[in-house]
Amino acid sequence: MPKRAIDLNCDLGESFGCYKLGHDEAVIPLISSANVACGFHAGDPHVMRRTVALANAAGVRIGAHPGLPDLLGFGRRRMAVTTEEVEDYYRYQIGALRAFVEATGQRLQHVKMHGALYEMALSDPSFTRAMCAATGDLIWLTPVGPTATIARECGLKVVEDFYADRAYNSSRSLVSRKIPGAVLHDLLQIRRQVVQALETGTVTTLEGEQVTLEFSSICVHGDTPEALDIVRLIREICAERNIAIQPLSELFA
Amino acid sequence: MPKRAIDLNCDLGESFGCYKLGHDEAVIPLISSANVACGFHAGDPHVMRRTVALANAAGVRIGAHPGLPDLLGFGRRRMAVTTEEVEDYYRYQIGALRAFVEATGQRLQHVKMHGALYEMALSDPSFTRAMCAATGDLIWLTPVGPTATIARECGLKVVEDFYADRAYNSSRSLVSRKIPGAVLHDLLQIRRQVVQALETGTVTTLEGEQVTLEFSSICVHGDTPEALDIVRLIREICAERNIAIQPLSELFA
Amino acid sequence: MPKRAIDLNCDLGESFGCYKLGHDEAVIPLISSANVACGFHAGDPHVMRRTVALANAAGVRIGAHPGLPDLLGFGRRRMAVTTEEVEDYYRYQIGALRAFVEATGQRLQHVKMHGALYEMALSDPSFTRAMCAATGDLIWLTPVGPTATIARECGLKVVEDFYADRAYNSSRSLVSRKIPGAVLHDLLQIRRQVVQALETGTVTTLEGEQVTLEFSSICVHGDTPEALDIVRLIREICAERNIAIQPLSELFA
Amino acid sequence: MPKRAIDLNCDLGESFGCYKLGHDEAVIPLISSANVACGFHAGDPHVMRRTVALANAAGVRIGAHPGLPDLLGFGRRRMAVTTEEVEDYYRYQIGALRAFVEATGQRLQHVKMHGALYEMALSDPSFTRAMCAATGDLIWLTPVGPTATIARECGLKVVEDFYADRAYNSSRSLVSRKIPGAVLHDLLQIRRQVVQALETGTVTTLEGEQVTLEFSSICVHGDTPEALDIVRLIREICAERNIAIQPLSELFA
Repeated sequence: MPKRAIDLNCDLGESFGCYKLGHDEAVIPLISSANVACGFHAGDPHVMRRTVALANAAGVRIGAHPGLPDLLGFGRRRMAVTTEEVEDYYRYQIGALRAFVEATGQRLQHVKMHGALYEMALSDPSFTRAMCAATGDLIWLTPVGPTATIARECGLKVVEDFYADRAYNSSRSLVSRKIPGAVLHDLLQIRRQVVQALETGTVTTLEGEQVTLEFSSICVHGDTPEALDIVRLIREICAERNIAIQPLSELFA
Repeated sequence: MPKRAIDLNCDLGESFGCYKLGHDEAVIPLISSANVACGFHAGDPHVMRRTVALANAAGVRIGAHPGLPDLLGFGRRRMAVTTEEVEDYYRYQIGALRAFVEATGQRLQHVKMHGALYEMALSDPSFTRAMCAATGDLIWLTPVGPTATIARECGLKVVEDFYADRAYNSSRSLVSRKIPGAVLHDLLQIRRQVVQALETGTVTTLEGEQVTLEFSSICVHGDTPEALDIVRLIREICAERNIAIQPLSELFA
Repeated sequence: MPKRAIDLNCDLGESFGCYKLGHDEAVIPLISSANVACGFHAGDPHVMRRTVALANAAGVRIGAHPGLPDLLGFGRRRMAVTTEEVEDYYRYQIGALRAFVEATGQRLQHVKMHGALYEMALSDPSFTRAMCAATGDLIWLTPVGPTATIARECGLKVVEDFYADRAYNSSRSLVSRKIPGAVLHDLLQIRRQVVQALETGTVTTLEGEQVTLEFSSICVHGDTPEALDIVRLIREICAERNIAIQPLSELFA
Repeated sequence: MPKRAIDLNCDLGESFGCYKLGHDEAVIPLISSANVACGFHAGDPHVMRRTVALANAAGVRIGAHPGLPDLLGFGRRRMAVTTEEVEDYYRYQIGALRAFVEATGQRLQHVKMHGALYEMALSDPSFTRAMCAATGDLIWLTPVGPTATIARECGLKVVEDFYADRAYNSSRSLVSRKIPGAVLHDLLQIRRQVVQALETGTVTTLEGEQVTLEFSSICVHGDTPEALDIVRLIREICAERNIAIQPLSELFA
């Protein structure tokens, strides 16, 4: 069950050149940790600078959100890359974002896998280990489940997050987006899932089973106007229960 | 006139995926500072990791060699980018390379402009200032001339280098590659230019004028088999004069 | 002065991967010729297929809208490419789009320069000639002005278009987007400019001069919700004057 | 068993920008059909133009060699793309190359899968069907095996080729490059495999089995200096047996 404070994290900085994606300006003031795209699957140097500035202005802490080198597929298509390539892609992207963060006098807080990298990590632990190697002493923010276990074995500082609007498998992994019902759209259903998680530390899986979850962060989405409603809903649920919203790094300070 | 020690710098890590460019394995043991491509005009994460490892193994210090986002044109085609974009591209690439260097326990030493960025810096000081802003407290390694002056005004630690095989304008800038005679190929002519620079601190320009030069590094090329002859020639010239080859950072230690 | 039928052309198919740009579904039924991005500055193979299908369904004829290889800059940043490179980029992109058009049993109708290529064509006629060489027997659709003259000298079938919402220089070229007042936003002002062009064959330039224009097409934009209002306004103006909207190729049939 | 004439095909045009790959100038005069990269996994518009010119000058017929959009991985890394995406990528690349070929007054002759697309076609027939749909009435040149069968079912004009220097599985597919022994390097072994194939229409598989093969073309490589020896060896073997070297399209004329 979570502490009396919790982190809200969201994927941000996913625009590219003249292409605008997400509602960063609206979402950032509502969250506590931002997962910022690093230019491979989304984002570009200018977007990264601007996203860092927005997060700083709102007191939101910043993490890297590295992806596969596939802008056309938004990093959502698995690629037959080697573990060494994954480690190198991770290191490159984390370093690039870190430069923007440190140029503002801040510190990078965490790293979180994007898209197909998460699926690849689930299906092959050596991918998780490769990403952990490049993450170093940053916080490894990851969905509840096997990728957290491996990262702990690698000696990383691990924080698990819970997805307000995603269905869960009994293995505690997220149901793949390709499967119907993977994404919850109904606000009532989302409220039920979040309240259950916060109050009982459990989630009811797609198969109907009730499994326990440990988490210190909730992941919210920012890429649809409806997503804003979900973020506001979660803040409301937390406020009702007197749960503060705080960045990961403060939860463990 | 140079000190009794001098740095030899060379552009390296310019391969990309299965495309091999340069003779890094042969050149690295002969130089003291490596300008490593950062993935925009050349290089990729895997090449960067390998180049850093090669340099470390040879005791060669590493600098970033950022370029324009134009792999197809190898960063040699001027682009109508803004100064803000240039600063962001610089920061991104320096950060990415820094991650590979620091992962090996080393420190990034310097930054050097690649290709069209140098021409853009020559024609508009605001580009130089933008790149300086992203360079921070790293050494600004640059051809003798106006880009050094501006960087000093920006408060940077500046080192000028001398091109063994390039012709000079009377303004002390490099003759553009588009002009015949810009690149020296004859080893005797190159020897003459290097000896003159080392002994008298001057160069004879394309127009026939003799101008003074201050430099602490010599830039050599590594992308042709003939280039290796030039590097060896310069080492020979230095050895004859009892001039040590040392990385930039040691010259100023 | 235009014929009693006129073409309406619009830049379309500018989405890329998961990045959506423009309001293609809404705009296509309102125009007669579509300038479709070809994957260099915008667009991708999947977007091209879909855009061709949308145009076919609406009876809209298709042209290629080639740009510079600069997705990050949306093809709006001039690059120091050679005329030979421009010709090759043009040929490549036209061929790629042609394949999608011909797969549906249709014929490609025209070609129109995108972004910085237009500025480059204005400043150096050899760029226009290079693009003409790759355009072959397709219609060369181009803003009123010098690029039309050169294309005619090259023996191309030329159609000039008029920009409803852009200011003009006295040389009949479009005022650069960098200059304030280059883009008209006020619907009344746009109506005035279009009516004047249709009725008197003239435009009042930014400098206040009245210059004559020959055109057979009007270019409209589709990338903002407001743009739809402009398209509807132009259709209204044409309807009031009993001017039919027809694809370029039918105007000359 | 092959006819008294046979085609020799080779992958060409794989350079990119300033990156040179292969020995196109040396190889082209020795073959009869060229598989030309189309800008996704290798090649660029300028390289395509130059490769087409080289092939034309040598009387070599041209085919498209489309790959995955992964320059960094040279199209050799499987990607989780959809069949629709594969069809679109194929159509785009074939169209782009066709433009260069037709600009010289020639006709495109064939299409051949590159890299991971071949592996994907082997593991899922729907990928083969998607590529066939975009190939239309061009010749489908493919390694002996299941991808030929499916293409025939799709109604395509199919030609199978034999790999002089690759090991075969008993299913008649090529042994994956990841498996030791997949690529033959010994000239005597290659001679034995080619002579056996030409004289008995069989190949001895990696497992030691002897399987029959029907083929009308031999695939040779051009990306290593040693590859030239293999091409010359095959020409020698053919000359000894009075087998002419002719492009695919002439074999069926």
